[in-house]
Amino acid sequence: MKTVAIVGVGLIGGSFGLALRQAGFNGEIIGVSSARAVQAGLRAGAISTVATLQEAATRADLIYLAQPVDRILETLESLGPIAPPGCLITDAGSTKAAIVRKAALHVRAAAFVGGHPVSGKELRGVEAAEAGLFRNRPYVLTPLDPADSEALQEFRSWLQRIGAHVVEMTPEHHDATVAFTSHLPQLLSSALAVTLARQPNPNVQRIFGAGLLDMTRLALSSSELWLSILETNKHAVAEALESAIKVLVEVKDAFDRENLMNLLDSGRVFASTLRAAQHVLPEDSSTPPGTFPY
Amino acid sequence: MKTVAIVGVGLIGGSFGLALRQAGFNGEIIGVSSARAVQAGLRAGAISTVATLQEAATRADLIYLAQPVDRILETLESLGPIAPPGCLITDAGSTKAAIVRKAALHVRAAAFVGGHPVSGKELRGVEAAEAGLFRNRPYVLTPLDPADSEALQEFRSWLQRIGAHVVEMTPEHHDATVAFTSHLPQLLSSALAVTLARQPNPNVQRIFGAGLLDMTRLALSSSELWLSILETNKHAVAEALESAIKVLVEVKDAFDRENLMNLLDSGRVFASTLRAAQHVLPEDSSTPPGTFPY
Repeated sequence: MKTVAIVGVGLIGGSFGLALRQAGFNGEIIGVSSARAVQAGLRAGAISTVATLQEAATRADLIYLAQPVDRILETLESLGPIAPPGCLITDAGSTKAAIVRKAALHVRAAAFVGGHPVSGKELRGVEAAEAGLFRNRPYVLTPLDPADSEALQEFRSWLQRIGAHVVEMTPEHHDATVAFTSHLPQLLSSALAVTLARQPNPNVQRIFGAGLLDMTRLALSSSELWLSILETNKHAVAEALESAIKVLVEVKDAFDRENLMNLLDSGRVFASTLRAAQHVLPEDSSTPPGTFPY
Repeated sequence: MKTVAIVGVGLIGGSFGLALRQAGFNGEIIGVSSARAVQAGLRAGAISTVATLQEAATRADLIYLAQPVDRILETLESLGPIAPPGCLITDAGSTKAAIVRKAALHVRAAAFVGGHPVSGKELRGVEAAEAGLFRNRPYVLTPLDPADSEALQEFRSWLQRIGAHVVEMTPEHHDATVAFTSHLPQLLSSALAVTLARQPNPNVQRIFGAGLLDMTRLALSSSELWLSILETNKHAVAEALESAIKVLVEVKDAFDRENLMNLLDSGRVFASTLRAAQHVLPEDSSTPPGTFPY
């Protein structure tokens, strides 16, 4: 792998460039992004040169799509006809099934692997990028082809060198999982904010503490960005919402002290489990070609 | 006000003692609490002496109940017959109507004022107490008697000296407000954790980011503590849950891109409003006796 093209030089794309550099990659890193983003990317050292998608596609061994989900879908259509043999295309989108389906239509199976770095922070843009963003975090890969290409093996080994914990699963399993762990929390945060916004009582905007601020932080996210995530995971998101609504109805109807105590307790135990889990790193589950452990 | 008794020397009680000291109170501060808590309170300087509730009641000008809601209800029953005339009893419980009703049964109206410092942090216990906990935070008072007693005027002026923003309202209005701003976020956090705990998919405990940790932080709270809060605010909490469930059903059924965008946008706008509101301090709404502005 000598030349990498990063399409979308933002928080994730920029961090990937910085992480590669820190891990010893000394090839060319081409940035494909807005004029503002590539300038900032060059200054940050996340990319070493700038090109159009067409130019980058002819030169890169790895094309890393770090755009919003709807933009990744568009880029895959443009890339299909121009990506040279031997070049691996991957993406960092928050949903996988729609992207993998689109790639299957436009790109040879061996030349694409879906990815999702389960990393991130509140800030956006390459200015917030950091080499350590992927360190000790899960990085989901959803290979299409049971036979690992050489390019995929090399990409996976770079992910390991930047400290990510590679976990492989099907695109559908990925989407079903993040519907619960990412999209549901996001929508609960938005729904909480909407519920309060609808209250005529002006004191809901005055008599509140840190808990409400915590619980409405995700609601601050870009609606545009989230629409393209939710639209590519409708079925799983609806299922997650239904499960949560069912629990909320149970809480509302938990007239019995013991019932409510049991519900609160099971929530508390799970919340503690999550906190323990984040310190126990997922085992690296890169597996022999063709096996999907999950 | 020469002698203050703090019943329940934890985060709130301890912080009240420290705040009084910092604001120049140089009378006695009696701690009534477990042996462990009063020892820690003495070491922290939050209290200056230790007594039983009976002893404290005969000496204090102000009795500050900083226990969990169910314990406050019990303490009010014990205090009624022994509190001397001229002594003001107040509490720092998270709900007000049940406590105020109990006080009305056992304590003369002029001798009790319900309170709720809308302050707090994740840690519990007097070890986490700090003099600045109430600074620039709303402090709700729910006076029973339209005529201010001298003791209430003095207590309110101490609250102002410790930097709290006193807001007066009826107990019922307080409870209806915090059902939305505090109890609902709490239950959404627990419900999210319960929803995930019920998923058979083991990856919900592995493939998650900071957003899920944020959204399940409140679920870590003590179930015991929350039960007594929720049990004294059942009606308003059920209403808040119903409103949130209604919004979640709308989100689930928002098939139309524009509908979903509108929902996400209105949540985002409200979440920003809250953040602006926390920097704009509520106006001090201590009002002439007998008027309830809200």
